Amino acid sequence: MYGRYTQELVLLSLNPVCVFFQMYGRYTQELGAYAKEEAARLREEGVRRPSVTERSRSLELLENDKGCCAKCRICTVRCQKFLISCVGEDWIFLILLGLFMALLSWLVDFGIGICLQSQKWMYVNLESNVFLQYLAWVTYPVVLITFSAGFTQLLAPQAVGSGIPEIKTILRGVVLKECLTFKTFVAKVIGLTSALGSGMPLGKESPFVHIASLGAALLCKFMSLFGGIYENESRNIELLSVACAVGVSCVFAAPIGGLLFSIEAMSTFFTVRNYWRGFFAATVTAFMYRVLAVWNRDEVTITALLPTNFRQDFPFDLQELPAFAVLGIASGLGGALFVCLNRQIVQLIRNQKTIKKFLMKKRLLYPALVTLLVSTLTFPPGFGQFMAAKLTQMESLETLLDNQTWSKQGIPEEFDSNSLSQAWKHPQVNVFVTLTLFVVMKFWMSALAMTMPVPCGAFMPVFVIGAAFGRLVGESMAAWFPDGVHSDGTIYPIEPGVYAAVGAAALSGAVTHTVSTAVVVFELTGQISHILPVMIAVILANAVAQSLQPSLYDSLIMIKKLPYLPELGWGHHEKYNICVEDIMIRDVMYITLNCCYRDLHDVLLTGHLKTLALLESSESMILLGSIERAQIQALLSLQLGRPRRLKYLRDRATAENNVCETSLSSTPTPSMKPLKPALKRPSVVDLLPLCFSPLSSLSSPGLQIAEWEENQLDEQVNFDNCMIDPAPIQLVESTSLHKTHTIFSLLGLDHAYVTSIGRLIGVVSLKELQKAIEGSVAVKGVNVRPPLASFRDSGTSGTIMNNENKARDLHKLWNRRKLMSLPQEHRGVSTPPPPTQYNPGNTTLR
Amino acid sequence: MYGRYTQELVLLSLNPVCVFFQMYGRYTQELGAYAKEEAARLREEGVRRPSVTERSRSLELLENDKGCCAKCRICTVRCQKFLISCVGEDWIFLILLGLFMALLSWLVDFGIGICLQSQKWMYVNLESNVFLQYLAWVTYPVVLITFSAGFTQLLAPQAVGSGIPEIKTILRGVVLKECLTFKTFVAKVIGLTSALGSGMPLGKESPFVHIASLGAALLCKFMSLFGGIYENESRNIELLSVACAVGVSCVFAAPIGGLLFSIEAMSTFFTVRNYWRGFFAATVTAFMYRVLAVWNRDEVTITALLPTNFRQDFPFDLQELPAFAVLGIASGLGGALFVCLNRQIVQLIRNQKTIKKFLMKKRLLYPALVTLLVSTLTFPPGFGQFMAAKLTQMESLETLLDNQTWSKQGIPEEFDSNSLSQAWKHPQVNVFVTLTLFVVMKFWMSALAMTMPVPCGAFMPVFVIGAAFGRLVGESMAAWFPDGVHSDGTIYPIEPGVYAAVGAAALSGAVTHTVSTAVVVFELTGQISHILPVMIAVILANAVAQSLQPSLYDSLIMIKKLPYLPELGWGHHEKYNICVEDIMIRDVMYITLNCCYRDLHDVLLTGHLKTLALLESSESMILLGSIERAQIQALLSLQLGRPRRLKYLRDRATAENNVCETSLSSTPTPSMKPLKPALKRPSVVDLLPLCFSPLSSLSSPGLQIAEWEENQLDEQVNFDNCMIDPAPIQLVESTSLHKTHTIFSLLGLDHAYVTSIGRLIGVVSLKELQKAIEGSVAVKGVNVRPPLASFRDSGTSGTIMNNENKARDLHKLWNRRKLMSLPQEHRGVSTPPPPTQYNPGNTTLR
Repeated sequence: MYGRYTQELVLLSLNPVCVFFQMYGRYTQELGAYAKEEAARLREEGVRRPSVTERSRSLELLENDKGCCAKCRICTVRCQKFLISCVGEDWIFLILLGLFMALLSWLVDFGIGICLQSQKWMYVNLESNVFLQYLAWVTYPVVLITFSAGFTQLLAPQAVGSGIPEIKTILRGVVLKECLTFKTFVAKVIGLTSALGSGMPLGKESPFVHIASLGAALLCKFMSLFGGIYENESRNIELLSVACAVGVSCVFAAPIGGLLFSIEAMSTFFTVRNYWRGFFAATVTAFMYRVLAVWNRDEVTITALLPTNFRQDFPFDLQELPAFAVLGIASGLGGALFVCLNRQIVQLIRNQKTIKKFLMKKRLLYPALVTLLVSTLTFPPGFGQFMAAKLTQMESLETLLDNQTWSKQGIPEEFDSNSLSQAWKHPQVNVFVTLTLFVVMKFWMSALAMTMPVPCGAFMPVFVIGAAFGRLVGESMAAWFPDGVHSDGTIYPIEPGVYAAVGAAALSGAVTHTVSTAVVVFELTGQISHILPVMIAVILANAVAQSLQPSLYDSLIMIKKLPYLPELGWGHHEKYNICVEDIMIRDVMYITLNCCYRDLHDVLLTGHLKTLALLESSESMILLGSIERAQIQALLSLQLGRPRRLKYLRDRATAENNVCETSLSSTPTPSMKPLKPALKRPSVVDLLPLCFSPLSSLSSPGLQIAEWEENQLDEQVNFDNCMIDPAPIQLVESTSLHKTHTIFSLLGLDHAYVTSIGRLIGVVSLKELQKAIEGSVAVKGVNVRPPLASFRDSGTSGTIMNNENKARDLHKLWNRRKLMSLPQEHRGVSTPPPPTQYNPGNTTLR
Repeated sequence: MYGRYTQELVLLSLNPVCVFFQMYGRYTQELGAYAKEEAARLREEGVRRPSVTERSRSLELLENDKGCCAKCRICTVRCQKFLISCVGEDWIFLILLGLFMALLSWLVDFGIGICLQSQKWMYVNLESNVFLQYLAWVTYPVVLITFSAGFTQLLAPQAVGSGIPEIKTILRGVVLKECLTFKTFVAKVIGLTSALGSGMPLGKESPFVHIASLGAALLCKFMSLFGGIYENESRNIELLSVACAVGVSCVFAAPIGGLLFSIEAMSTFFTVRNYWRGFFAATVTAFMYRVLAVWNRDEVTITALLPTNFRQDFPFDLQELPAFAVLGIASGLGGALFVCLNRQIVQLIRNQKTIKKFLMKKRLLYPALVTLLVSTLTFPPGFGQFMAAKLTQMESLETLLDNQTWSKQGIPEEFDSNSLSQAWKHPQVNVFVTLTLFVVMKFWMSALAMTMPVPCGAFMPVFVIGAAFGRLVGESMAAWFPDGVHSDGTIYPIEPGVYAAVGAAALSGAVTHTVSTAVVVFELTGQISHILPVMIAVILANAVAQSLQPSLYDSLIMIKKLPYLPELGWGHHEKYNICVEDIMIRDVMYITLNCCYRDLHDVLLTGHLKTLALLESSESMILLGSIERAQIQALLSLQLGRPRRLKYLRDRATAENNVCETSLSSTPTPSMKPLKPALKRPSVVDLLPLCFSPLSSLSSPGLQIAEWEENQLDEQVNFDNCMIDPAPIQLVESTSLHKTHTIFSLLGLDHAYVTSIGRLIGVVSLKELQKAIEGSVAVKGVNVRPPLASFRDSGTSGTIMNNENKARDLHKLWNRRKLMSLPQEHRGVSTPPPPTQYNPGNTTLR
């Protein structure tokens, strides 16, 4: 009270001055504004009060000791408040997140570097004995991968894999709590370091997106110790999308590319508020990441991660564009193939029951076997010599982006003897062969390695494969046109490195269904002069890949069966013509205001939605709100629960003869262990296992209890003290599928009620919507995602019947709709709405 | 019928084959999917039918002549259908838009080039006589600007100015129809060409965003001749945001920058669907724009628009970063100053009544005077020699981005004699002085020129000023550290051109409040190696400018008083604590199901919202829907209109004596001219001027009519055949301001009802929301936008009182809330919701 008092005093003492000034100075204009401002200030204080309850309580405590140190304390408290409000500012959070993630990324890089170096060291030092060399080359990654898989499995199994599918689902509104814990964080970081340290074709990018999100979530939790703002759920989800940008940025030092990637790959609707945040945090990260390299004396100054030296004055000829286009289209096909291959491998393992059984028992065997296979094939003195297996991922990328031409008219050129590009040169074999082998082998190896249960991504391997493929095309072009393709006098030789950059962007774009890989390439190489070829190739690759397969992340979402709403495709315009009416379920589970507890009970046993509609009455069907299932359960347990039961028994006991009084009052205490066979109403008990099972298990007054239960169930429900959502999202029957999709994805809905003038007529849930979207995709005749659909259907038995049912439902709906299309009166609506000329206003969800 | 029949026949004939195949092949997996697909196909056909009514009618006509040519016709019709569905694809539209806009941009450039060249030619050829030279130098732009202003004024006054504010408002959901007409298009293109041809410091970028949007809107209209999909309003608005990206892209050949600009500057929520579209269209535009230059032999191959040659291996030193940061902060201040200056000029002209009156009479005088002033000051032999006035905007930008150092230790270096940079060198005056003069003079000139009533933007002039300012800082740095700042042995001299690029990005970013200017700079110069300095400067400039002033476009929106919802700022976290309850209006205008026409009439006379709430009854307050004001007006006119009145009079006439029958039946015909003095109910008549004023003007049965009217008004309303929106957007009282803002901006709402368990308790409109957002900004004590607030308030008299009222309302609300905070029963809600533990589910709009 003291604290508040002084605050108001300050206000009072300041206000007359203000008013005076205002009246004297610019009275007419600003008094209104001033009053508004003050009102807002008052209001805001009031709003803030509950959130700082604890502090105001400490201020109230100060009232008691009105000594001289009280003022000091107030000062301290106020300073603290100021500091807290500073901490609440976004930019502090963003800087902290950026710095932290950059440091972490650098440390992970450092760890990976040490691992890879020690493998190389072993390999070089054992050159005398090929068998020992092979053993070292193979054992080392197997141990690392097995450790990674085991560690992740033990600590946090949800850290396995890419992580982007989970983050995508979380951003969609379905919070997967276990994906954002500290354990997952530790498991992911350590597992990733050891997995990448093994030299397998795995990527760092998508796990880092997950790690950054974990970092953001943990930082939010940490910051929430200081102020109330970090407790806001929707704000934290917004910050997750910022974290995605940070994650990409701290891997490639590509802030803009990271931001764009987070827009494309993560969201359906992007809040532009987050744009600024993402840009800021990503820049801080990229800056810090590169500065760490400078401080560590790896670099002289801040440059791109993989700077290239392509020709700038004449980056490419117009006549080269068809080659770039072909490269883009081929990359698109390759990307689709990669996604398909990856999924087929998972499917194969899942479907083969013997393999599955065997692997389920020995979880660590699978990654060990895969690693053994891959590392055997890449053993440099063995097959690895034909595919530059000596080089690490970053090294291969560096050599592929080289601006030298490796072969002239089919004859390999001389490389610098100490250049890394030496690895691509084989005494017997052409450069074209090594490149082709590299592309083919790495392709299936990456798709296979992706399926190991370790934290890993696919972006980087795909990027490298794309670069190699691009290089192959580029070298071919250089061999075909040794003097360049320009018809004028000047000779501009073809640079295969440009093709490598284009190929990398195109293939990774095709696999992830993003176009921002183009920007990542620019930022990674530090050159943007070849922007148009890169973008044309990326667009073509995307167009091809998107029409053949879902993106890698969507594919993973489907494999993992995460609850995610598919996106409306590009140009599927028939979705503009389907209405909610066509897809909604008309048979809605509901409860009415004047229902009895038995209805609640019955309703709980059926249906699957998380909430139930509350209607005024079953005649009027007016929707009053929705109630969560848990609330109804609570209502039931309140009515039939232990306290009331006890009371009833006591009342009964006093009313009956006093003989059995002692035995009854003592029974509740020992009856804590449930005796299931004696239960009369297993269904209710299943719902309320802890509340009244002990008591109903009393065998002697069992019948009376049952009678009492029946009576209780017939009573009318008292909805006081029950949490009702008074405004669940409502749609109109003529709301288009397009708009419905928008609303569902924007607001992260699980279901929405369909009403007609306040009367409930149906419900649409995520499932129906999903079905409708996929259905209408299939309608087009192109049959875009058949492998997927079959993949998912085969996952659980029984879905086939389900699908048939769905189809029957659709038929039924369709027939009903046809019948209904003209006369609509029989829906029980007093004012039948003409469906085509309805709601012309702005406010309708058409 | 014939057409449909054959279709179904085809289906039937195909299906067994399919089924057979399915049953034999992969029966278990795919039958369900197949059935689903077929159902969807059937459904979709049904849905499509109404949209192709005409064609199906033509097919039905074919049924009659069952000749052999019928099949041919069906074939033709089907081909036509196929073509139409192709045209409906997005990518055709996007390619067309891209190509068209690139061509247009190139043509406008061509026109501007011709204008500027002819001015230069005149200037050079008249070198003998300075007076004639001056006359030519000054007259030419005055004529062009006057023509531009006059032409725009005559053809389409809404083509004046930047156009981005209008597009922003349209994307917000408020459709300004007159901004998207063909007239505006023509006026904007021709006006822009002549305005920029005058050589005034005006920009091409923002008008081109408007032109591209116009192009998209017109193309949509054109395409809608072919298929139904282009009639979808929400889709067309989505395409507008794509058009913005195209607009920027075809000015700077910067597809990524354009896309990002369209995200940042245009939307509050960005639909990721549009990302792809924008990327594609922007790439097509940029490609076409540059290819046109190659075809026209301006360039050898596709390069950046203003390619630079900065050092790549060592782009900048870490120790230069503070200088870049200072440049960023100074640019931020400059940007805020620019926005403020521009607004002050407009304000000055508006407030000075004599100036305003004079200018309103002679609309063309103001631009002519401004042009005269600016061109006099830039006359090259006069003051212009000190500010490189000879150069056009693009030329100055080119020279500023030069990688030469212009001065070494204060002594100007020798330029190439035929280089454009010569213009910056003055025999008497230092380079620093010319640069400073250029910056200062161009600064106010641009701010002034922006206020002329011609189609013009400010981006390009601001960009050039920023580049000059950056160059100034860079030259100073170069003079200060002639050997570079690197402490090691190697000498890396400082490149002032990099500073120019950084300054350009920072200042333009500060004025427009975007960070994508950084990307525009990369794409414009074709170099990205200095990405971190640019981004740091842009971020700092944005942070400074955003805390001081609104963006230029927001400022223009405020000046033009467009209906736009301000955005929630960065880090204004108190908005997470305000609820709808605090800002809603509790005194809602409503009508009930059982109300009489008199209530409708009364309700129409008060209130301002476009729609009215329809309640079940005033006791239950259950919200059934909302009705548009126009609908109520229609209901009233139906009840009191001419036909019923005539009928009444006739009935009356037959009931009364037959003597006056003839006189009564003849009176309606001559009474078509309204006789106002005889009206009894002016208010009703005002609402329904055409319906029954002629009849109530009959003086002899006037009293009877009045009585009849009274009776009619007392009748109960029949809501059949009235268009009711059955699901207006509803919020809960505890919905946060943050969420409310999100919903309003996402769905483009005008108002939303606040309900508590189906009962209407308040309404929130755009106005309240606007007020609350600005109020809570003011609360922070930083008082972010005082000049704006005063600017807007001074616009119309009477708003002061209004503001006071608002403040009083807020006070009242606050007091009421304080009283109410604990006991909530008196709101007439039977189940009082505990405000803090409400709606825990996903579905609530918290």
